[in-house]
Amino acid sequence: MTQSLKIVEIINIGEELLIGRIVNTNASWLAKKITALGGRVRRITIVGDDLNEIASAIIEAVNRKPDIIITTGGLGPTFDDKTMEALAKAIGKPLKITSESLAALKKACKRRGVPLDEKRMKMAYIPEGGEVLPNPVGLAPGVMVNYEGVTIVALPGVPDEMKSMFERSLASRFLGRGFVEAELLVEDIYEADLSPILDKIIKLFPKVYVKSHPQMRCGKPVITLHLYGRDVTSLELDKVCEEVMNMISSLGGKISRVK
Amino acid sequence: MTQSLKIVEIINIGEELLIGRIVNTNASWLAKKITALGGRVRRITIVGDDLNEIASAIIEAVNRKPDIIITTGGLGPTFDDKTMEALAKAIGKPLKITSESLAALKKACKRRGVPLDEKRMKMAYIPEGGEVLPNPVGLAPGVMVNYEGVTIVALPGVPDEMKSMFERSLASRFLGRGFVEAELLVEDIYEADLSPILDKIIKLFPKVYVKSHPQMRCGKPVITLHLYGRDVTSLELDKVCEEVMNMISSLGGKISRVK
Repeated sequence: MTQSLKIVEIINIGEELLIGRIVNTNASWLAKKITALGGRVRRITIVGDDLNEIASAIIEAVNRKPDIIITTGGLGPTFDDKTMEALAKAIGKPLKITSESLAALKKACKRRGVPLDEKRMKMAYIPEGGEVLPNPVGLAPGVMVNYEGVTIVALPGVPDEMKSMFERSLASRFLGRGFVEAELLVEDIYEADLSPILDKIIKLFPKVYVKSHPQMRCGKPVITLHLYGRDVTSLELDKVCEEVMNMISSLGGKISRVK
Repeated sequence: MTQSLKIVEIINIGEELLIGRIVNTNASWLAKKITALGGRVRRITIVGDDLNEIASAIIEAVNRKPDIIITTGGLGPTFDDKTMEALAKAIGKPLKITSESLAALKKACKRRGVPLDEKRMKMAYIPEGGEVLPNPVGLAPGVMVNYEGVTIVALPGVPDEMKSMFERSLASRFLGRGFVEAELLVEDIYEADLSPILDKIIKLFPKVYVKSHPQMRCGKPVITLHLYGRDVTSLELDKVCEEVMNMISSLGGKISRVK
């Protein structure tokens, strides 16, 4: 429930992301959520199902000292699910079954109506000292550990499981200052002609980020301007939008607010 | 035109990816293409429009010694387009306008029917020693530089521009051994029960990767098995599929090949 801005790194784990079989919607969902909750995602890293690669990615992220690292993927019962082992390696702790992790897995197996056999038991191993995050949808519990001042959270890769565990166990930790955004559509002006105006805007309103996304439609330039800020009220953002619209209109461009 | 497997890292640049405004389809498109061409994507990194973050991500990637690093984004005319500057910083070279970069930009401006003014001139600056990659769709040229044995390629972030430049200037560099894949759909067996079979399969066929993607449908388990390999013929893969299907049938599960 702190008011400070949380810096977050996301690590998505899975060969399917590195061969392009799957579009990484977990990253964009998490990034959107965390941003809306007032956090700031500083980096996203995708690695395959390789013990050393995962452990390296975690250690490198820890060394950049974010507040929170969230991993997704690699928590299941099969041979290619290596996140818990890699996390244990990264933080120098052994993997252990705890009463909490066993209870969480037992409960999930019971709900699913499946036996807790040797293969599923793999999912009860968590790095020593970790806090178990129950999985309300699937089987594999997640874990939260503190290491060198960084909170590391391992979530499953199955989107429904990842989302429900984030909402349940993590969302409340990000409550920071508000995030506001607006979108303007600019027609008949090229991005290059717009850039002096954007330079002026960011000098006038340093707390608002302005990003231009150019496209060509039917041979004509169309630019979406995305304005957003943290610790900015929507009234302040409205004022910035108005200013931008005036400046662009004076250049002879068509501009409208779409969001 | 070499036959060796190229190891690739992708670095996607843009705040819009870190706030979840955009799903990173550039990464999945590139990953799929590179994999199909026989390359191997080992890591994907996403950073924002920050000079030091971009330069650090490039240096870290260089230190992991892939064959090729591909960056996307940050080549446009606005203040937040910092990739060329960051690349120059990472490899310790100054930014320069060359006759090739100027010619490429002039040609693109002429095609678009826009003037090559001061703001657009920013896009003609490339790191010293770089090879210009013309942009057949948009304005900003890309660049290819060699640094410490690694080929670094900067492509634009606009998907159409990125794709056409990859096809035109990069695809032929990946021609390695063939990549084959198959997909099996397993019903009525849980992933945990499947895992001993998968363990057996990867021991029997070490060149084929098998990845299971579990789902629940109407309260029943459905697992997609994705099998793929490099330097594997489709006949060999067919044999592996047959073996897997026999093993799973003998467990009482329903299995079919869908791809």
